Amino acid sequence: MRAKFDTGDERLARAAWSRLTEPGDNDAQELVLHQGPVEALAQVLADRGPRRWQARLPGLDPIRDLETLNRFGGRLLIPGDAEWPARLALLGAQAPFCLWARGPLSLETATTRAAAVVGARAATAYGERVATELADGCAARGITVVSGAAYGIDGAAHRGALGASGPTIAVLACAVERAYPRGHEKLIQRVAEVGAVVTEIPPGSSPTRWRFVERNRLIAALSAVTVVVEAAHRSGALSTASRAQKLNLPIAAVPGPVTSPSSYGCHRLLRDGAICVTSAAEVAELAGRMGEFLPEQLPYPVAAHDGLDPTDLRVFDALPLRRPAGLPALMTTAGLDAQTVVAALGRLELRRLAERERGGWRRGTP
Amino acid sequence: MRAKFDTGDERLARAAWSRLTEPGDNDAQELVLHQGPVEALAQVLADRGPRRWQARLPGLDPIRDLETLNRFGGRLLIPGDAEWPARLALLGAQAPFCLWARGPLSLETATTRAAAVVGARAATAYGERVATELADGCAARGITVVSGAAYGIDGAAHRGALGASGPTIAVLACAVERAYPRGHEKLIQRVAEVGAVVTEIPPGSSPTRWRFVERNRLIAALSAVTVVVEAAHRSGALSTASRAQKLNLPIAAVPGPVTSPSSYGCHRLLRDGAICVTSAAEVAELAGRMGEFLPEQLPYPVAAHDGLDPTDLRVFDALPLRRPAGLPALMTTAGLDAQTVVAALGRLELRRLAERERGGWRRGTP
Repeated sequence: MRAKFDTGDERLARAAWSRLTEPGDNDAQELVLHQGPVEALAQVLADRGPRRWQARLPGLDPIRDLETLNRFGGRLLIPGDAEWPARLALLGAQAPFCLWARGPLSLETATTRAAAVVGARAATAYGERVATELADGCAARGITVVSGAAYGIDGAAHRGALGASGPTIAVLACAVERAYPRGHEKLIQRVAEVGAVVTEIPPGSSPTRWRFVERNRLIAALSAVTVVVEAAHRSGALSTASRAQKLNLPIAAVPGPVTSPSSYGCHRLLRDGAICVTSAAEVAELAGRMGEFLPEQLPYPVAAHDGLDPTDLRVFDALPLRRPAGLPALMTTAGLDAQTVVAALGRLELRRLAERERGGWRRGTP
Repeated sequence: MRAKFDTGDERLARAAWSRLTEPGDNDAQELVLHQGPVEALAQVLADRGPRRWQARLPGLDPIRDLETLNRFGGRLLIPGDAEWPARLALLGAQAPFCLWARGPLSLETATTRAAAVVGARAATAYGERVATELADGCAARGITVVSGAAYGIDGAAHRGALGASGPTIAVLACAVERAYPRGHEKLIQRVAEVGAVVTEIPPGSSPTRWRFVERNRLIAALSAVTVVVEAAHRSGALSTASRAQKLNLPIAAVPGPVTSPSSYGCHRLLRDGAICVTSAAEVAELAGRMGEFLPEQLPYPVAAHDGLDPTDLRVFDALPLRRPAGLPALMTTAGLDAQTVVAALGRLELRRLAERERGGWRRGTP
């Protein structure tokens, strides 16, 4: 078949492969990996080698696809471009042939510190609230929030990042100029204006179940950690976690009430070894460079007797609240000898935990 | 000092040591371990060796203590007794000198399969509900629920076990005939009637902070697993978990909303490697003998296209819902060659996921 374009151009050849195949087509990936995209495409056009891609040859027109992309202000990224995310090398042969992208965010820069925040479409108010807060806290720390623009957790994640005026990337299972789901058209448009919208699916294409499944590997690979906020027993978000695991990337899950079916999937992940995260600081710790983000320690509310050693605590326990007790009584109550009790009383007095009165001792008021 | 009892009787000697010391008195434990309780006591009575226990010698009267115990229908257990829990050997030198016990349950039998279900006094309705359900489910499986009879999670755990007419043990930080907290007097009485109430503290004694701390090592050691249901940032239940960890026993934690301070402690445990548990079946798996209790698998709700291999799923995705499509259209949409599409259609037809109509194919209705 005669091609309508310069078949020697790698950019056009990769755009063509994106059109000829479905994501995760191992045969095509192997062929392109070993022959290079240009030579591999020449073989298909000359009808040499496997015939499985012939069905889509008649409609093949990467120049028109790039024109469509340009009309929506998008750009095509291929391996070797400065903006090509280095992280995608994790995917090996499963890396996409190219990425169709929109939005001002540089994908390579944005994915040096990124966390996927994903979860069920059928999320609860709790899940959406937590997703928003995690994403807000990550974005405020300059960590890119990667998600899939779906209803529920994904949408809350993008909104949280946008609310913090922080970086966010929506990875779609359809063409980059299409909005799916339709109810998130404005949200996706907003992400395209200030963040990035990206896909491996060529212009004009709709999402399919298979494209959703394979899209999840991109979400996982673009992020240093995948955080599942809510997921029912069988949720697409679990497939993203499973792709992250296959890439040896950390998986984190947000706990929820055990009585909430929307948290079943998260609890299963926790049982399977996922990291329990409860705050943006804990996510940041996993998404940043080693030691860059340390979660703030909650201040310990300190009780007066905190940090006493066992002996001092026993003497403190033995001190009456009001009527002072003498040394023999304290020795009996604490079960300690005179020398030990006297030494402990000295230490307790320094901390104002013990007070002398009328030759005896009682509890102090620090 | 002249003793009021037969100082050659190991039973009386151990009761005496329980009265002379506070729990976790390492010096006393070492002395008893190396000299035996009788000889060690003789040394103290003869004022040889350390003087720290002299203060309590004047009131020492183990026969009277045993009479008090008898009056409440209790019994003294010492190592070597058939009912002495073999698990306490885990504590090594930190094992109690003796146990003051009430209730029909044999401690040795009851602790061959036991789970500690513990948590915050200031529990939420969620926490109490989960504690009750876990304890009910454990007790119904014949697993003994061990707890501390405190308000909140502990009380809910005992009540759950009692509700299932199952075994439960309350480990107290005060004398076995005393009820602490007072508001749980009836609950503790009920546990003493059908289960077991046990302590290392001699009759007539009140709880102290120190006794609570050391009581937790008994809860941990008597149980094959320690389950923390709810615990705030600083909760006594975390000390029970920490004792279990020191004994190399598994720690489990119940997740809750990350927005609930009552679950902070549980989430910290999960982050530190505790096992996430959400059901009695999962607790039973940890408390029973290996493989004895396997948690029931939740039934997977099956969608029609579940379990399809990638190729079949792509062809299924390509099938129109109503107007049938021909082979070339299916090849283009699925991005697969004719042979692959035809083979997939055959498999889909068998599962009624594809239907032939007017020379084309559409989605079936299984």
